[in-house]
Amino acid sequence: MKNRILLNCDMGESFGAWTLGDDEHAMPLVDQANLACGFHASDPLTMLNTVELAVDHGVTIGAHPAYPDLVGFGRRRMELSPEEVRAVVLYQIGALDAFCRAAGTQVAYVKPHGALYNDLVRNDALLEAVLDACASYRKGLPLMVLALADNRRELQLADAADVPLMFEAFADRAYLSDGQLAPRRLPDAVHRDPEQIIDQAVAIARGESFPDIDGKPLQLVADSLCVHGDNPESLAVLRRLRAHLDAS
Amino acid sequence: MKNRILLNCDMGESFGAWTLGDDEHAMPLVDQANLACGFHASDPLTMLNTVELAVDHGVTIGAHPAYPDLVGFGRRRMELSPEEVRAVVLYQIGALDAFCRAAGTQVAYVKPHGALYNDLVRNDALLEAVLDACASYRKGLPLMVLALADNRRELQLADAADVPLMFEAFADRAYLSDGQLAPRRLPDAVHRDPEQIIDQAVAIARGESFPDIDGKPLQLVADSLCVHGDNPESLAVLRRLRAHLDAS
Amino acid sequence: MKNRILLNCDMGESFGAWTLGDDEHAMPLVDQANLACGFHASDPLTMLNTVELAVDHGVTIGAHPAYPDLVGFGRRRMELSPEEVRAVVLYQIGALDAFCRAAGTQVAYVKPHGALYNDLVRNDALLEAVLDACASYRKGLPLMVLALADNRRELQLADAADVPLMFEAFADRAYLSDGQLAPRRLPDAVHRDPEQIIDQAVAIARGESFPDIDGKPLQLVADSLCVHGDNPESLAVLRRLRAHLDAS
Amino acid sequence: MKNRILLNCDMGESFGAWTLGDDEHAMPLVDQANLACGFHASDPLTMLNTVELAVDHGVTIGAHPAYPDLVGFGRRRMELSPEEVRAVVLYQIGALDAFCRAAGTQVAYVKPHGALYNDLVRNDALLEAVLDACASYRKGLPLMVLALADNRRELQLADAADVPLMFEAFADRAYLSDGQLAPRRLPDAVHRDPEQIIDQAVAIARGESFPDIDGKPLQLVADSLCVHGDNPESLAVLRRLRAHLDAS
Repeated sequence: MKNRILLNCDMGESFGAWTLGDDEHAMPLVDQANLACGFHASDPLTMLNTVELAVDHGVTIGAHPAYPDLVGFGRRRMELSPEEVRAVVLYQIGALDAFCRAAGTQVAYVKPHGALYNDLVRNDALLEAVLDACASYRKGLPLMVLALADNRRELQLADAADVPLMFEAFADRAYLSDGQLAPRRLPDAVHRDPEQIIDQAVAIARGESFPDIDGKPLQLVADSLCVHGDNPESLAVLRRLRAHLDAS
Repeated sequence: MKNRILLNCDMGESFGAWTLGDDEHAMPLVDQANLACGFHASDPLTMLNTVELAVDHGVTIGAHPAYPDLVGFGRRRMELSPEEVRAVVLYQIGALDAFCRAAGTQVAYVKPHGALYNDLVRNDALLEAVLDACASYRKGLPLMVLALADNRRELQLADAADVPLMFEAFADRAYLSDGQLAPRRLPDAVHRDPEQIIDQAVAIARGESFPDIDGKPLQLVADSLCVHGDNPESLAVLRRLRAHLDAS
Repeated sequence: MKNRILLNCDMGESFGAWTLGDDEHAMPLVDQANLACGFHASDPLTMLNTVELAVDHGVTIGAHPAYPDLVGFGRRRMELSPEEVRAVVLYQIGALDAFCRAAGTQVAYVKPHGALYNDLVRNDALLEAVLDACASYRKGLPLMVLALADNRRELQLADAADVPLMFEAFADRAYLSDGQLAPRRLPDAVHRDPEQIIDQAVAIARGESFPDIDGKPLQLVADSLCVHGDNPESLAVLRRLRAHLDAS
Repeated sequence: MKNRILLNCDMGESFGAWTLGDDEHAMPLVDQANLACGFHASDPLTMLNTVELAVDHGVTIGAHPAYPDLVGFGRRRMELSPEEVRAVVLYQIGALDAFCRAAGTQVAYVKPHGALYNDLVRNDALLEAVLDACASYRKGLPLMVLALADNRRELQLADAADVPLMFEAFADRAYLSDGQLAPRRLPDAVHRDPEQIIDQAVAIARGESFPDIDGKPLQLVADSLCVHGDNPESLAVLRRLRAHLDAS
């Protein structure tokens, strides 16, 4: 029985006077923190503080680069050229890594955020640009992408760029049959029932199949589960999930 | 006769569609390029391209961090706390260093820009914050500061932070008797005569005294001269200066 | 017995995905809403929605312009020239007024925010710049300033600019003897006791004296009280204050 | 012979320390200035100065709103919702109008910029959002759109929103047969020959047909020609064009 799966969480999403998320309570429960780098959220002082919080809890730090769109929280598609994408990703990795270095650690992986994350699925040139940013920043720096039923495209491009991949899955989202996330506009796209979330998490952790949005079995091979801990409800689920995984 | 002085120049100051400076022509003439990091000028793609230009010409790259003020080009004082200053400097060093790493080099020194540069003279806590940013980014990363008649304050604080200092002087600016730059609002604060600029440069390079704004002799110990190459006139002076220094 | 005092509140301070304040609950309790204009907080869609909320509750709308500093929430001093201050204030008034016009109303007054508000006390040229922005935007557009023991300076400059003044006071802040707010770093600078807040509010509303930070009587002539309603505690005080003023 | 056509030009595109265009020399030659509003270019002080320059030359002022993308100069598509587009357009119209009011005039029309301008052709909801922004800012405020062989779609939506349309054409761009601009990636998409530019301008001014990119006759009904005056070459063409139109 395989159940070694990590938990990753988007963090460091406050900005100046504005607070978002509950990093204090969520940080002790996760393995990997995807930290905003100032383009969709966060600012230098928030990054510094969040890196220190992660280090205090022994949590691995990933860069969470995004399109330059604070007002839209990086969720709005922007037509950047591959060269621009490579440059904005490099910029953000380096900026975050400065705080990691100051705290005695380093950026351990890269997970693009929001619209940029979504655009990588559809656009080879953009995915190559992000892979190239990872490879040229540090040999061996992994990119985290969505675990699909078939990840051959991502593996092929990553292999060509000599970049290791990490695959993430979601416990609280419904899936289409190919392993893409069910669009949020569909009913039942997001799981609300803690039991269902725990069941899907455990299935993914064990490499077992679970029902997609149509009830058909879907199997995903994932290294990490993306979790949320920004409110009391999601924190409660996260605590149960953490306990389940630690116990199994 | 000592004449080993370097030439440094603020570069990479374009922003998006806006061009500033003439980096193409100035880069081959200097030893050190102080590159804007996106807070007062530049953007990720401009940084990437300017780093590559510097590397192509074997020019050493310094980070040129600033207050976050694009509209004001980092020239307007902003009341940041020392913690904020440390964080914005770390952020900018790291962002620039990402492009250096991608180009096979690294940020070799840090020279604050504009209002931040000026504020370091008056405020120990801010200078300590910048020194701490340098030290915590990379042991031995030097900070470039203004060569004064008496730099004991800077040396003491830098020593406490274990940060090497580099001293820069200006060939085209008039000096007060203590080695501070004569404020630009004073008449004759900026030298226009190429002969005077060359003479002052050569004197500083040789460690000899030159006339301050009142005509009294001033001696500065400097590692580098800050030069300009953003228009045909300044480029012409820069070419003569380069030839003088190379010949001597 | 004079007790016709208005209640004003800083609102529309959310930004993109980040929420600040509790405008929904505070709006029905105030007379005047000082709305952020995108430079220290807010964004176009937030401004549009907040203007509509104010109009729905018959609340008068004031522009709340600030220095251009989202990360610092407009609380950090920035050295803008008077010309720059005039321009940024005009820009922000106009931007907010667009949403007012779309909602069938107009910006009724201007109250600078944060560091800009504080800088007006010390700097005649900046105050004149803001007064000129008001006058040149619309004849008769009032500026809201801090009620002091002696407001002759403000009245003189406003008179010269032909701008009406509105004076605001604070019920939850301790005062120095000249009517300046006690700096927040002093103990007891902020009143926490609801009774004390209500008492000070009622005294100001009636034009009666109340104790300054040293216990000596201070009398202020004010048109409006600045109140807060961004959390359950401040909302509770605001409700009591509203009831007191309505009943008296 | 109809030859009453206006000349419009994008202006006020400098930003802080960065200069773009040659507004000083172009302003006296045009009838309408489309002024950037701070989202893709310009800043409050630049807007203030450019409005004054336009007023000094009796040039009509149009708002030139854009997506919020300074680095990309508003040329990169961004997926804003229609509500967001309505809000950003209202914001920018109002901001510019503040400087117009201070200069004794008002925004006379709205011409979207860059990617926003292009997106209006493909997306009814976005066009309706911009039309609604115009109508709700001021009854009768015209929107400037691209003159096509068939503008029934634009006229229908504008009629529903009760917004007058102004149609613009280009003298220096090649056209597809339907009146869309030939994409810049096509060879010959941009006319370089001054004679060809003058000929196309005169034809459009007279309501006569001119050759499209395939040499077939195209007829456009336009109120205004979009011209450029940002360098000596384009200024020379603009001067000849102005003389031609004034003489005819």
